[in-house]
Amino acid sequence: MLTAAHAPLSELEAHDDFVERHIGIAREDETKMLSVIGAASRQALIDTIVPTAIRRAQGMHLPTPLSEAEALRELKALAGRNRVLKSFIGQGYHGTHTPAVILRNVLENPSWYTAYTPYQAEISQGRMEALVNFQTMVCDLTGMAIANASMLDEATAAAEAMTLAARVGKSKNTTFFVADDVLPQTLEVVRTRAQPLGITVLTGPAEQAGQTECFGALFQYPGVCGRVRDLRPVITEVHARGGLAIVAADLLALTLLASPGELGADIALGTTQRFGMPMGNGGPHAAYLACKDEFKRSLPGRLVGVSVDAQGAPAYRLALQTREQHIRREKATSNICTAQVLPAVVASMYAVYHGPEGLKRIALRVATYTAVLARGLQALGWKLKHEHAFDTLTVLTGSRTDPLLVDAVGRGMNLRRAGPDAVGITLDETTTREDLSALWQVFAEVVAQGQALPSFEGFEAGLPTLLPAALQRRSAYLTHPVFNTHRSETEMLRYLRSLSDKDLALDRTMIPLGSCTMKLNATSEMIPITWPEFAHIHPFAPRDQLAGYELLDQQLQQWLCQATGYAGISLQPNAGSQGEYAGLLVIKAYHEARGEGHRNICLIPESAHGTNPASAQMVGMQVVVTKCDRDGNVDLADLRARCEQHSDKLAAVMITYPSTHGVFETEVKALCELVHQHGGRVYVDGANMNALVGVAAPGEFGGDVSHLNLHKTFCIPHGGGGPGVGPVCVVQDLVPYLPAHRTAGIGSEGQVGAVSAAPLGNAAVLPISWMYVRMMGAEGLRAATECAILNANYIAARLRPHYPILYSGGSELHSGGVAHECILDLRPLKDSTGISAEDVAKRLIDYGFHAPTLSFPVPGTLMVEPTESESLAELDRFCDAMIAIREEIRRVEQGQWPQDDNPLRNAPHTAQVLLASVWSHAYSREDAAYPVPALRRQKYWSPVGRVDNVYGDRNLFCSCVPVAEYQ
Amino acid sequence: MLTAAHAPLSELEAHDDFVERHIGIAREDETKMLSVIGAASRQALIDTIVPTAIRRAQGMHLPTPLSEAEALRELKALAGRNRVLKSFIGQGYHGTHTPAVILRNVLENPSWYTAYTPYQAEISQGRMEALVNFQTMVCDLTGMAIANASMLDEATAAAEAMTLAARVGKSKNTTFFVADDVLPQTLEVVRTRAQPLGITVLTGPAEQAGQTECFGALFQYPGVCGRVRDLRPVITEVHARGGLAIVAADLLALTLLASPGELGADIALGTTQRFGMPMGNGGPHAAYLACKDEFKRSLPGRLVGVSVDAQGAPAYRLALQTREQHIRREKATSNICTAQVLPAVVASMYAVYHGPEGLKRIALRVATYTAVLARGLQALGWKLKHEHAFDTLTVLTGSRTDPLLVDAVGRGMNLRRAGPDAVGITLDETTTREDLSALWQVFAEVVAQGQALPSFEGFEAGLPTLLPAALQRRSAYLTHPVFNTHRSETEMLRYLRSLSDKDLALDRTMIPLGSCTMKLNATSEMIPITWPEFAHIHPFAPRDQLAGYELLDQQLQQWLCQATGYAGISLQPNAGSQGEYAGLLVIKAYHEARGEGHRNICLIPESAHGTNPASAQMVGMQVVVTKCDRDGNVDLADLRARCEQHSDKLAAVMITYPSTHGVFETEVKALCELVHQHGGRVYVDGANMNALVGVAAPGEFGGDVSHLNLHKTFCIPHGGGGPGVGPVCVVQDLVPYLPAHRTAGIGSEGQVGAVSAAPLGNAAVLPISWMYVRMMGAEGLRAATECAILNANYIAARLRPHYPILYSGGSELHSGGVAHECILDLRPLKDSTGISAEDVAKRLIDYGFHAPTLSFPVPGTLMVEPTESESLAELDRFCDAMIAIREEIRRVEQGQWPQDDNPLRNAPHTAQVLLASVWSHAYSREDAAYPVPALRRQKYWSPVGRVDNVYGDRNLFCSCVPVAEYQ
Repeated sequence: MLTAAHAPLSELEAHDDFVERHIGIAREDETKMLSVIGAASRQALIDTIVPTAIRRAQGMHLPTPLSEAEALRELKALAGRNRVLKSFIGQGYHGTHTPAVILRNVLENPSWYTAYTPYQAEISQGRMEALVNFQTMVCDLTGMAIANASMLDEATAAAEAMTLAARVGKSKNTTFFVADDVLPQTLEVVRTRAQPLGITVLTGPAEQAGQTECFGALFQYPGVCGRVRDLRPVITEVHARGGLAIVAADLLALTLLASPGELGADIALGTTQRFGMPMGNGGPHAAYLACKDEFKRSLPGRLVGVSVDAQGAPAYRLALQTREQHIRREKATSNICTAQVLPAVVASMYAVYHGPEGLKRIALRVATYTAVLARGLQALGWKLKHEHAFDTLTVLTGSRTDPLLVDAVGRGMNLRRAGPDAVGITLDETTTREDLSALWQVFAEVVAQGQALPSFEGFEAGLPTLLPAALQRRSAYLTHPVFNTHRSETEMLRYLRSLSDKDLALDRTMIPLGSCTMKLNATSEMIPITWPEFAHIHPFAPRDQLAGYELLDQQLQQWLCQATGYAGISLQPNAGSQGEYAGLLVIKAYHEARGEGHRNICLIPESAHGTNPASAQMVGMQVVVTKCDRDGNVDLADLRARCEQHSDKLAAVMITYPSTHGVFETEVKALCELVHQHGGRVYVDGANMNALVGVAAPGEFGGDVSHLNLHKTFCIPHGGGGPGVGPVCVVQDLVPYLPAHRTAGIGSEGQVGAVSAAPLGNAAVLPISWMYVRMMGAEGLRAATECAILNANYIAARLRPHYPILYSGGSELHSGGVAHECILDLRPLKDSTGISAEDVAKRLIDYGFHAPTLSFPVPGTLMVEPTESESLAELDRFCDAMIAIREEIRRVEQGQWPQDDNPLRNAPHTAQVLLASVWSHAYSREDAAYPVPALRRQKYWSPVGRVDNVYGDRNLFCSCVPVAEYQ
Repeated sequence: MLTAAHAPLSELEAHDDFVERHIGIAREDETKMLSVIGAASRQALIDTIVPTAIRRAQGMHLPTPLSEAEALRELKALAGRNRVLKSFIGQGYHGTHTPAVILRNVLENPSWYTAYTPYQAEISQGRMEALVNFQTMVCDLTGMAIANASMLDEATAAAEAMTLAARVGKSKNTTFFVADDVLPQTLEVVRTRAQPLGITVLTGPAEQAGQTECFGALFQYPGVCGRVRDLRPVITEVHARGGLAIVAADLLALTLLASPGELGADIALGTTQRFGMPMGNGGPHAAYLACKDEFKRSLPGRLVGVSVDAQGAPAYRLALQTREQHIRREKATSNICTAQVLPAVVASMYAVYHGPEGLKRIALRVATYTAVLARGLQALGWKLKHEHAFDTLTVLTGSRTDPLLVDAVGRGMNLRRAGPDAVGITLDETTTREDLSALWQVFAEVVAQGQALPSFEGFEAGLPTLLPAALQRRSAYLTHPVFNTHRSETEMLRYLRSLSDKDLALDRTMIPLGSCTMKLNATSEMIPITWPEFAHIHPFAPRDQLAGYELLDQQLQQWLCQATGYAGISLQPNAGSQGEYAGLLVIKAYHEARGEGHRNICLIPESAHGTNPASAQMVGMQVVVTKCDRDGNVDLADLRARCEQHSDKLAAVMITYPSTHGVFETEVKALCELVHQHGGRVYVDGANMNALVGVAAPGEFGGDVSHLNLHKTFCIPHGGGGPGVGPVCVVQDLVPYLPAHRTAGIGSEGQVGAVSAAPLGNAAVLPISWMYVRMMGAEGLRAATECAILNANYIAARLRPHYPILYSGGSELHSGGVAHECILDLRPLKDSTGISAEDVAKRLIDYGFHAPTLSFPVPGTLMVEPTESESLAELDRFCDAMIAIREEIRRVEQGQWPQDDNPLRNAPHTAQVLLASVWSHAYSREDAAYPVPALRRQKYWSPVGRVDNVYGDRNLFCSCVPVAEYQ
């Protein structure tokens, strides 16, 4: 307690006061918890849990923390170094108006951005409806049969389309054709992805595809230079040679143009950025990927499908999950395990808000303005490269190219250098008459000062667009009522609210998901991402306009190096899977540079995340699985044997630390040394960094490469299943190989190619992690780690009398000693009562919780990770629920409730089910609804009963539900 | 449908596209609705409803509308004309950090800002809990027994305290003493308020109060110049002479200082602005008013109390409502009928977030910095006026005063001119070391260039504050758990969400409140209010820094004059009641200026709003009530008789148009002429302007004065019960009398005095109305009016077969022809079934609706005002609910359900009640919960059963509920 008389200024200034906002445990609670755990102090607990051998040699060198207001001020100054010019660059990134009602009530609203990936279907119905809207929107506009729930960006979507074509196509050819008017960043990422898979990438004019033997060909529609080409002839030719046709298409253009499906494409992809998501220096945006019906079971990424619940009502769920790498790991062909849900929700809501008529009006305005601009430029004497255009003109500027670009910047406009003697101008939703006049002025002045400008007078009545008549769209789209009934803001607002109300996110309950680190996403961290200085930046704008982002990048790199003990880092990968992939590419490049390109064996313990083998396969490594002991630790003897067996060819070993079982393996240093002795490099998966920051550093204890999940440890929200950020960190001798981005002019010889469309990946969410580190400081971050461990051990200690805790070490603690998560074993109960871990997970919904991670890493278990942000009250609420559930199970054990009719088996209970006039269950309505008294004060009602997974996969349906089904 | 080929630019540009976002009725719906109403077209409907005689002579001259993005851009440029300097002015307005989690999740969140005043207790439990927190916070900090739920601003709170003292004090004296260090704007408003009531205001040094015969004395604590004075001696003296002591106190200072209650004050008041609400050029902020227990039944304003619901559980409700003018109108002594709920919620949450420890730390930092600043200034050779201080120093600056002020502005800092030879410096939560250094620099440089500045070195260990030891606070405050458990942001976020989830606001349902106009508060309208250029402006900053606000004021005045047909307007009144009061002051001043000050009769028809007579009494007029006919129209014969009777003394007639019964009285022009003939002026209450804008203008058809409710017609949200804005509009010859604001240097001879603390009243919410008018344009506003009338007539037409519609004219329409609202008569059903209008209102909660206005203007009725923003689907959902309810009543009529046990009588039904194991009602659980099928898809659960009003008033308790009560 402060005394009114006298206090040191440092105490009054409290620059570190965010730490207590982030960490949920108050000082007085800690004492209580430690006594439950049986530890004398937090320090003593950590000393018991974290092996001395791996402890950090020294603290992290980070700037002293700032308060929320101070950090916001500093970041605002940094943001001010960016210069926001009007962008006419195009090239996949466009100005857009985020409808204010969507901005405030989705993008800036915690009920949307703090949600987790919708694995628990029942508490995710709202965002899954939004994603089904997204899928429907994509299918409608592209004319394809099925679309997934979004991809990371257009470039990686193209790469995934390439590998999809390789998998499903009939051609055995290994050549992939890319038309030369595909976005350059797409080509770069496709090349990166193709090389380790032995795919040859050929480029040339689109027409050339028809004369090329290839398993697939990628076209841009319209092309990067604006040309709108009828792709039908060349697609026919590609098909004739057994290849598949892939079209990267602009969704806005598709409101006016014949769709890829109508043109005969097999796969379509693109970005939805211009549907309401700011450019954000390149991301996050939702890309899309759609294909013909016959390929649907090979489509990578997430797919939301419609199934039924226990009462037969329609209900959404993730469909065909068995495709995903985290289930059938050895057969994984893509390491994609996330999506861009939040941007996908924004894009889908943009379509809901505007509807087909509104979208068409926007597109037609863009196309008409483009025609007007062209007329004006022609009147000024300029020649255009292409006759047809939607939103982009390429002006033949010859020797005037440089002066034009410079002059435009001087007037606050960025144009695109379209080669040495041409300039590209791309219009968008935000373009105004004033912009057109300003553009004319630039082009007029460079020829002759004071030249008369074109007038709008002649254009008032409109102007035919420059779209080719043969490609005019005639098919309908977005005909479902959802795209035609929320036109007023009131209706839109209520629709958004009604969806988010169906879901459980961090704004209502803890989400104790093991390995997912659902911690606080603080408002002060979120506020900067919609500042115009961060939001309205084109990733390929002149570098000097990105000075703020560059500084952000540098500082965040330094800080994350401090946190991990590594020497270098790239923030480019826009998901953990991409960081992992990039990290393995770096190892591969390192071996190749040393003339040891033959090293291609990647050892992976059987306890690893499923992405690990998938990523290894994607870089062309051969996966060899090594054993674990009964405690979930790597079996060092087996590893040694494999290292010796494959010594010549050993490329890498991938481990997770602490392990996916939540164990701090004591032998990790020895393991790393062993691998190094055999010439391999150690990849330490950073998924569990939340147990390490400030306590131990992978770069110090022997790791060579790690990726981080900034959306876990560093507070970027999960957004309902993306965006993520997965920086890749490396030791000194691997720094030269970190990913380049040659499209953006970044990188030198030896660096691996771009892995994301934009140089900084999901740049616009990086301020979140910047704010977090800036406000926490070294001490705060270490305290967060320690409290995450404290909280997990508290839960373990409280639940150990009720459930076996797996892999909890052999320490003297009552908790048994776990890391930052603990695994509850439900298999014995399943045997004795028929109650499964899934039943418990669903019953937790009745208690108002999002379930812990189900059946990972061990089938039949729940893995609980509370994180440091939860309060003791919330931890107790969870423990009380789990204990009450154990008592419910006991009533089944004791035969009071039948195995096939009890509150667990029937969970979750909807209000409708509970209010049915006839009630014939062995337990009462109140037993079902209010098993603990606190639920009478606050109760979450599941919007659907338990969702039937099998039905959904058997009857795959991934578009908006016809209204009749609901009635 | 647009054709892809060709469309005029104007159609593609769609500058007016906000109109369809604001108006809920689509074009195709309109046709359907007109046929139900029986009108050929919207125009035909309006022609039938609105008397030709009052129709506008010409359209409104408003700028052509802009799209949302365009309007935001234009307003941003306007905002940019304001200059945001660091404010050290103090004088009641301070820099503050709005905690980001509160900013985003309260101030910028529609679930809070679109809520209505909590008259319907059951669906307002969340915000009432926040208001009880507010009341508890005020009581704790001030040491008073009871506090209300907020006042409009500190100055009007002081004026209300004065009249409260006059009412409850024992002294018959008519003198009111105001200490000379009270905030000058407070003094100005008190003088305005005192004059018509015959109260003499005396000012002088605080000590002088003890020697003055007065019924009350007002002190500022600390004084405006910073002095912290021990008020105990003078309060004792005031008491000894039979007067009451009123203390205007700074809540932040009270965390360190003995409270007004401890000093012996009878009444305490002040602002809570510095608890997280930005200065916003003067408002909106929540003021507070607290008093001794014995005066509680005389306390003006809203008071939230704790009662019980039908099941005996604790439940909140507005307490002692019978005090309010809208119930016992003839006895009203204050016209306050709103509060500043949204700012009060922010302030209370600021206290919840920081807790007593956090608040104390902030206060202690401010006080310590003040001591540091003083030391430094003294070291630089400056003398201070007072020895003791909390946050404000008055520096004796002699002839250097002007150069100092100018130099400070040059360095981005505003200081206060504290008389001709002194400068005031007030610190606040946002003050930093850098600020202190900058201040020292200003004071150093003005003496000698390059003078050495004080260093912080000697202050690092802290410094005693300048608070007098005798006044150091020893009593505890904010000890309730609510102020001590939400310290982490996660907990805070969930608390906010849990509260707002309990309430029904516009983001979930229509709120068809007659006379309250709950229309869309569009996000684009809301976004600007938290822009720094609007939010961080001190109302008494140098005028040139307020250029943006000045332009906003001018433009909005022009536009509102266009909308009303008046010649002049003042935006100063910060609530409708204040506008009404100001308008009557203007009429009074007009008569006085003409030497007819004896005119003091105000005729008010019996159908008028209760504020009307209250306001008339406040300006010293004598109210004479005139009759209405059976249709709710003014009885013109009776009015004529009264005019003749009081012709010499007739000051004004107050009418509402359309009438509170929702009728366009055809005789209104004749009425106005009649009044004018007798020398009186016509006050047209603007409450129902939503039926007039663009169609008829009070300034044209004979009105002399009107107030507007910008929080009704012009889209400022109700905020759960404030802020409002109530501009007063007048015809040409009354313009010279509009309110001045002499504290701000605004106004000339003849103008009435200030009615609000700040010259622009609730300035910071004016951008909302600006955006609305700018985006709607003249056509859009007229369409809004017409659709409001259309929607009301549609509801009337659909419900007329089921309920009698009162006062619906005799037109040929199926609806009977109503204005923008309609009154459903439930009295006959009450007689036959015992079912009351209240039962129906509560039953609507079960259907997911906020009830219409209950028993106003006619007891036993519901008045429905749908506004133009609702969609046909929502109107139908409401009509379907009302019809289903009628069928439920029929089952009571027919004896199927007993009169004392049916779903209406027992409404609202909580989930708990419905899930009780034993169910012994005559109707089923499903009858109760799901009377219409749509409720099975989306259901709002009332958090409490019907609240017992009588119990609450008998057992008055207005602070946080002890936790034990909930268990």
